[in-house]
This record gives sequence, structure tokens and C-alpha cells, in this order.
Amino acid sequence: MHRIKVRVVEEALDANNTIARANRDDFDRQDVAVVNLMSAPGAGKTTLLERVLAELDGVRAGVLEGDVQGSFDADRLAALHIPVVQLNTGHGFGGECHLDANMVRSALPSLPLADLDLLVIENVGNLVCPAEFAVGEDVRVMVCSVTEGEDKPLKYPLMFRRCELVLVNKIDLLPHLDFDLDRFLYFLDQVHPGVERMLVSARTGEGVAAWRDWLASVPGRERAVA
Amino acid sequence: MHRIKVRVVEEALDANNTIARANRDDFDRQDVAVVNLMSAPGAGKTTLLERVLAELDGVRAGVLEGDVQGSFDADRLAALHIPVVQLNTGHGFGGECHLDANMVRSALPSLPLADLDLLVIENVGNLVCPAEFAVGEDVRVMVCSVTEGEDKPLKYPLMFRRCELVLVNKIDLLPHLDFDLDRFLYFLDQVHPGVERMLVSARTGEGVAAWRDWLASVPGRERAVA
Repeated sequence: MHRIKVRVVEEALDANNTIARANRDDFDRQDVAVVNLMSAPGAGKTTLLERVLAELDGVRAGVLEGDVQGSFDADRLAALHIPVVQLNTGHGFGGECHLDANMVRSALPSLPLADLDLLVIENVGNLVCPAEFAVGEDVRVMVCSVTEGEDKPLKYPLMFRRCELVLVNKIDLLPHLDFDLDRFLYFLDQVHPGVERMLVSARTGEGVAAWRDWLASVPGRERAVA
Repeated sequence: MHRIKVRVVEEALDANNTIARANRDDFDRQDVAVVNLMSAPGAGKTTLLERVLAELDGVRAGVLEGDVQGSFDADRLAALHIPVVQLNTGHGFGGECHLDANMVRSALPSLPLADLDLLVIENVGNLVCPAEFAVGEDVRVMVCSVTEGEDKPLKYPLMFRRCELVLVNKIDLLPHLDFDLDRFLYFLDQVHPGVERMLVSARTGEGVAAWRDWLASVPGRERAVA
């Protein structure tokens, strides 16, 4: 029983990688750098985007918003007057817990790629499967809230290992939590030694300028690599 | 492409339900009431169990602990001197994002069911798939932390709809958050009208007595139903 299930999943991942490469080719042809933004539910992805997307200094950004249901986050980001496309995964059964390459591909015709330098794909809130499904991105960023506890890198290692940047969010709450930041960073370095990390608070704005500059520099960095 | 994938998932759910019923029959035969405890990562499931499992007033409890990797939470709960079995889902590819009935079935021989009145199955931290896969439980409880934002019932409706009890945790942090509790409860009632809810803080102990009493009464309630 179980062996068959795993086999199906692996075949699905192969197909996913093929489609992810096709997406990536399309993004490259249009010269669009793509960030896959991931986190647990409620870690602050949308608020961290709201904070910086309107001030990216000449970088034309758009967002592909992934959710099981609804367009809450897309509505918030559309208020910034940037292109936002909502992708809902809640068809079929109870809803897919991640975006896959084929879902992203289905949204490409709705995105004005020729007018963008940067596309942020805000994934479904989940620390497991989004890390397993490439969608055609150049870089992966994850948000981890200090309210989630210090042990998360050890419990969800693939997610932390796959990212080029870890945003440690809600640091304004540190005085009110039993959260040992040094212990968290030690665990982070155990699963992804030296990975770039930023301490931020979307609420107070602490660290947000560094996050904005990092995000604004993604298109230039990706062009230099290509 | 996509239609085929959904079909496979639905077949997997059928098989899952068959095995879940077999698990349920085994639990019933041994007179064990079973709670499926679910939440997003870091919402406080384990801490809320630590707070109450040692004081259940004559109810003999055990825990089946689900995680992608590691035994962090199981180690914490084993300190309470109750039977704890760890189930890791991180085989095959990057790890399953939920427990399914077959995984739970594989753990049954390790559980001293004849010596238990109550089994708590702590699911993998995730607000999507755990709600889709029955594991043989009698009741479902979810933990939602106020740090996750007010919109979660609308974004993950199946999880909130499937539960018999919603524990709204970390209420000690309310003075430090922009979280409108009335708005959250309004959204909760939109997706699951009148569902039982408790405001708790695993950290300060507020509301924990009510949660302990509720959990201790599950075996009696389930026997009355049967």
C-alpha cells in the first residue's frame, strides 16, 4: 500500500520538475527573476511583502498569490497598485497544501511578464510540501516567526535547507516569549550552515530596509548569474 | 495532467478511509477514545498536552506523536511518564505533511492500547492535509494561535470545519498583537457556526483547566455515544 503511494508521488515530482524547467525558461526569456516565498500559516509573508513591494526602487514587481481558498492576501497586495494574480488550490478534494509547477504554469497567461523585473510567488502556508515542489523560481525565501518556537529547523529541515534567505519575523514579540534566539540560530546552522538570515519585524519595521534591498537586488543578481 | 493527479488523490483517500475504519474498530474493541490534535507549526499542541496529560484524573492517556523528522515533542511528553510513540513521516521524498490511517495503523503494535482510556494523536503541523485524512479518531481538536492572524478560518476552512473543539492559544500575547479577537471569532462562526472554542494560554495557564476537563471527559462521552 504505502510503497505504491510513494512511487506515485515520485512520478509526480518528476513531472513537476519538467514543468518547473519550462516555467523557468519562460521567465528567463522575459527576463523576470522569480522568488518563491514560503512559511508556516500566519508567519507574516504578506505583511512583509506589503512593507517593501511599493518601494523597490525601479524594480517592477508582481505577485502570484497561492492560497487554498479566498483572495484575502491578493486583495491586500493589489492595494499597492502592482500586478497580483490569485491562484486557489482548493479544487478536487479539500485543497492542495502547496503550489506546484503546473498550477503556476496555468497562471502565466494572466501575468504581465513583459512588464516585470521581479515576480514573487507567495506559496501556501505550510512548512513541508512547498519545499518539495519547484515552481520555476530562481531563489527561495522562507519566513519563520519567533512565535513558532526554536525547534522548527530540526522539525522541518528540508524547508530551511532549500532556502537562500531566512527571514526571522516578529522579533518585536521576543520580550514576551520564551524563545531563545541563539538556540534557534544554532539549530538553523545545523540544518543549513551559514544560510543568510535577517531579523525583522513587519509590525515595527525593524530590519525591513535590509529585506527590501535584498529583494530589490534579486533581478540584478540573477542577470549576473545568467 | 492535473485531472489525473486529482483522481489518484481521491483513490488514496478511499483507501485511507477503509484503513481508518479498521483503526477505529481496533480502538473501539480496546475501549480507547482517540483525539486527533492538529494545528499549524508552532501553535502549541505539545505544550498544551504537557500542561494537562499528567493530571487527567484517572484517565490513562497515551500519545502518538507525528513529525516529519526527529522526536523533540515525543521526548518532552515522555517526561510525563506516559506511553508515547513517535511516528516520523520523513521517508521516501521530503516527508509527508500529515499522518494518514496507514501510518497510524503501523504504530498500533507499539501502543499499549489495553492499558489506555485515551489516545491523543498529535498530527504533523499543517493546516491543510491533516484535515483531509481520517486516522480512526473519535474527535478532532485544533489549536490556532492568535499570532497567526484573524483570517485563518477563511483561508483554511476545512480544518476549522472538521473540528469539534478549537483551542485559541497564546492569548497572553494579545496585548502585543494587532489581532482582533471578535473578528477571528466572527470568521470562525462563518466556517463552523457555534463550534466549541476555548481561549487558552499554555504559557500562563489561563483556560488550561477547562481544556484539561474537556479532554478528561472524552472517554466517557465516547462510551455514552457507543
